[in-house]
Amino acid sequence: MKDIQNEVDRRNIALKNVGIKDFKLPISVLDREAKTQKTIAKIDASVDLPHDVKGTHMSRFIEIIKDMGSVSPENVEKTLDRMIEKLESKSAYMKINFDYFIKKPSPVTEIESLTDIVCSYEGFKVVDEFKFLMGVSVPVITLCPCSKAISEFGAHNQRAIVEIVVDTNSFVWIEDIVKIAEESASSPVYPILKRQDEKYVTEQSYLNPRFVEDVAREVAIRLEENEKINWYGVGVESIESIHNHSAFAYTEKGYTL
Amino acid sequence: MKDIQNEVDRRNIALKNVGIKDFKLPISVLDREAKTQKTIAKIDASVDLPHDVKGTHMSRFIEIIKDMGSVSPENVEKTLDRMIEKLESKSAYMKINFDYFIKKPSPVTEIESLTDIVCSYEGFKVVDEFKFLMGVSVPVITLCPCSKAISEFGAHNQRAIVEIVVDTNSFVWIEDIVKIAEESASSPVYPILKRQDEKYVTEQSYLNPRFVEDVAREVAIRLEENEKINWYGVGVESIESIHNHSAFAYTEKGYTL
Amino acid sequence: MKDIQNEVDRRNIALKNVGIKDFKLPISVLDREAKTQKTIAKIDASVDLPHDVKGTHMSRFIEIIKDMGSVSPENVEKTLDRMIEKLESKSAYMKINFDYFIKKPSPVTEIESLTDIVCSYEGFKVVDEFKFLMGVSVPVITLCPCSKAISEFGAHNQRAIVEIVVDTNSFVWIEDIVKIAEESASSPVYPILKRQDEKYVTEQSYLNPRFVEDVAREVAIRLEENEKINWYGVGVESIESIHNHSAFAYTEKGYTL
Amino acid sequence: MKDIQNEVDRRNIALKNVGIKDFKLPISVLDREAKTQKTIAKIDASVDLPHDVKGTHMSRFIEIIKDMGSVSPENVEKTLDRMIEKLESKSAYMKINFDYFIKKPSPVTEIESLTDIVCSYEGFKVVDEFKFLMGVSVPVITLCPCSKAISEFGAHNQRAIVEIVVDTNSFVWIEDIVKIAEESASSPVYPILKRQDEKYVTEQSYLNPRFVEDVAREVAIRLEENEKINWYGVGVESIESIHNHSAFAYTEKGYTL
Repeated sequence: MKDIQNEVDRRNIALKNVGIKDFKLPISVLDREAKTQKTIAKIDASVDLPHDVKGTHMSRFIEIIKDMGSVSPENVEKTLDRMIEKLESKSAYMKINFDYFIKKPSPVTEIESLTDIVCSYEGFKVVDEFKFLMGVSVPVITLCPCSKAISEFGAHNQRAIVEIVVDTNSFVWIEDIVKIAEESASSPVYPILKRQDEKYVTEQSYLNPRFVEDVAREVAIRLEENEKINWYGVGVESIESIHNHSAFAYTEKGYTL
Repeated sequence: MKDIQNEVDRRNIALKNVGIKDFKLPISVLDREAKTQKTIAKIDASVDLPHDVKGTHMSRFIEIIKDMGSVSPENVEKTLDRMIEKLESKSAYMKINFDYFIKKPSPVTEIESLTDIVCSYEGFKVVDEFKFLMGVSVPVITLCPCSKAISEFGAHNQRAIVEIVVDTNSFVWIEDIVKIAEESASSPVYPILKRQDEKYVTEQSYLNPRFVEDVAREVAIRLEENEKINWYGVGVESIESIHNHSAFAYTEKGYTL
Repeated sequence: MKDIQNEVDRRNIALKNVGIKDFKLPISVLDREAKTQKTIAKIDASVDLPHDVKGTHMSRFIEIIKDMGSVSPENVEKTLDRMIEKLESKSAYMKINFDYFIKKPSPVTEIESLTDIVCSYEGFKVVDEFKFLMGVSVPVITLCPCSKAISEFGAHNQRAIVEIVVDTNSFVWIEDIVKIAEESASSPVYPILKRQDEKYVTEQSYLNPRFVEDVAREVAIRLEENEKINWYGVGVESIESIHNHSAFAYTEKGYTL
Repeated sequence: MKDIQNEVDRRNIALKNVGIKDFKLPISVLDREAKTQKTIAKIDASVDLPHDVKGTHMSRFIEIIKDMGSVSPENVEKTLDRMIEKLESKSAYMKINFDYFIKKPSPVTEIESLTDIVCSYEGFKVVDEFKFLMGVSVPVITLCPCSKAISEFGAHNQRAIVEIVVDTNSFVWIEDIVKIAEESASSPVYPILKRQDEKYVTEQSYLNPRFVEDVAREVAIRLEENEKINWYGVGVESIESIHNHSAFAYTEKGYTL
């Protein structure tokens, strides 16, 4: 049977990424409390394609990914190595997006429930260099410092999403990055809040007004102090209660103008 | 050239809807202030298919829709009539989703800017009966009455979306339904708010706490008073600032349990 | 501490649904092969609110849902019963959307991998009446009969989504409904296809041309024969390869015009 | 009234971007045939924030954007200059996403209708340097060369999206970039296809099989020849008809490994 993909290509254009996108698969990830957690991933995976090869063999990506085992930085690297080998490329890339659930007691009555964090593991391998990025999207509350300062009572507040991406030199728990995001905001959010809890969250967020700018800076300060983190990017988006658009702020390690 | 669609079908299954989905087209709609407004629609259109016909002719939907002219209840009915005629069906359905922009001054400094309302026109024709529904999605603020009552200071608030669908017996302006949604909430939202405006909106929403339940009821009361409205449905979704999920409430004319 | 929600409401408007929306939670569902399968749900839950009560207690929904156990029709009914009891309502509603994975060998080389089906369980309880609907969204191939008939070679084809909702009188496996959707189309889709498999799928779909109309009818015929099914709705949407919009068809049990 | 944003910040963290996100506005863009075209934009805009300033003044973004006039590269630069001036920053960024409609006759019967292209204008200004990127997302058909070569009849095909981003040194029409994407694929897609047209498109795409890899390379070859283009990135995603995931390929000017 003909192998069209293996034919020579004379157009002389190398491709940076060739692969699959939005492939869903059940996976296990490391969980600080329960050791592992089962979840569902949406996966992109690709390799480079040399200038003189017609196409890649797309089915091999899924054959490799379905056998990758528990998802950890080490297994991401091994999976990229297998892609490079089986697809005869020089580089491989993979992004795994998944929901991660963390037990969270309400702040006063301490009723436990699970809170959902959208996460990503991203790996890139070229020759012997491996780069690994972990991303978390953490819902929090931002209460506007300007609104509080100028108003006789009340202050507008809203759900905001803190997106943190870190390049780490050793293993970092999702829980630790989530904690940094929550500490940096006016307040965390919670799945269950009884009345005593709601009073607490309302008052705490009023006492801790934060612009998106403040949250980005508070996250940056905490990440700068963490020696496991080589690089970070932090974006904060407030679903403004007073507008029909968002406010956002972004910075990253090493940024200066 | 063969006309497969026109062949006889012996499976004896009539289809309720056969047509196109998510077709984008620039359209004009009626605008109370400027007479017409140009916008972009995403359109679904379908007819019924008798049990003994193999298929419909999908290209005719677009030929008919592209010539429908300015989008009004009358033109929706005419367009449905043409579909019934050209596609030899007994019924036709159409839903037109579009953004509609309304000039809105900020509440104190009165700086004008445009605010975006997601709208829909929905028409259904069978034999001589024509049904027309107008839908609007209005962003507003909800400030939680419970949070205000139990907290020493502050109150959680957030953007909420009020979705109203009305079946009308004569023409109703989008602007009038939007006004009802905004009056029923803790406060409207605005594209531009200078500091004096932000103080006003913050204080007004604190003075007007509203659950999603309250907003749904306030909208219902106002729609009940409008004689042009035969039926309504109203749904309110608050993007809760204190949770990672929404709160919602729904009711409709004539609901009792 | 004040209980605002429990106050009397004098506006005299009963609400059909009051509750939570888009709450994410890890769940287990019944799996024909492995007994249970862990997955992630997005949940909406609501109760009615009598005309004379100010508000519902939103935190109770999550307290009830987090303890619902494995998700089955029986547990959905029990969960609705608890909502009615704890929230002092007359009716309760719940929709659980989740991904479900089924092992699927490729058609010739028989390499196994998992295929993702988007599913929903929907329950409604009022007084003693319980209604349960199961929904599946199945990706398939549709190859256009008209394109095949009029062209000298080739035929346009595309991914299509078959959405089936069934009201059942006894337990039906997701796998059985998925099979019906796949048999009714030009061909199933597969996660992994080696070349022999791809040849098979290409030729099979060419030999089985199907309009969206055909797929809807073929599904309807098969569901009519199943005595466990009281009612069904079936929608088919083809992501047309030759257009930038979709073609779709819908019918339901008992439809006649 | 207090100006919290103007206060000194001692945390010593400069922010790369502070601004607004997902602001919708009706705009006009240049149209090769009709001179201008009215459409609707979704806009992100931001400036940098020096390490010693507490916050930016978000309302000014909208005041500036609402007066930007017709959207062209020149007006994007002027708008960024005004942001830098009014918000006292050193850099400004803006991304404008919009739908653009192009008249397209069907290939044989030449019935004209409008086809929708999702576009973006992206501008970045720092000190005196201005960078402008134009992006287009073009729906096309890809017919699989492997499937055609190994099968006795037929070949799987599907809708694919070609995303091209170009950095230009002088004005380039959206229409020219769209043409490049369409020429590079197995066939363009069309809003209306009568039977003669459908036969033509079916046969043409069968005669021009293209992997996503081929489309990316064909686009790259054509963009390399255009002297107005300093840099390009091209991504191609096929909504695979035989799978429930996509195939994709990406390359950019100057890529080598």
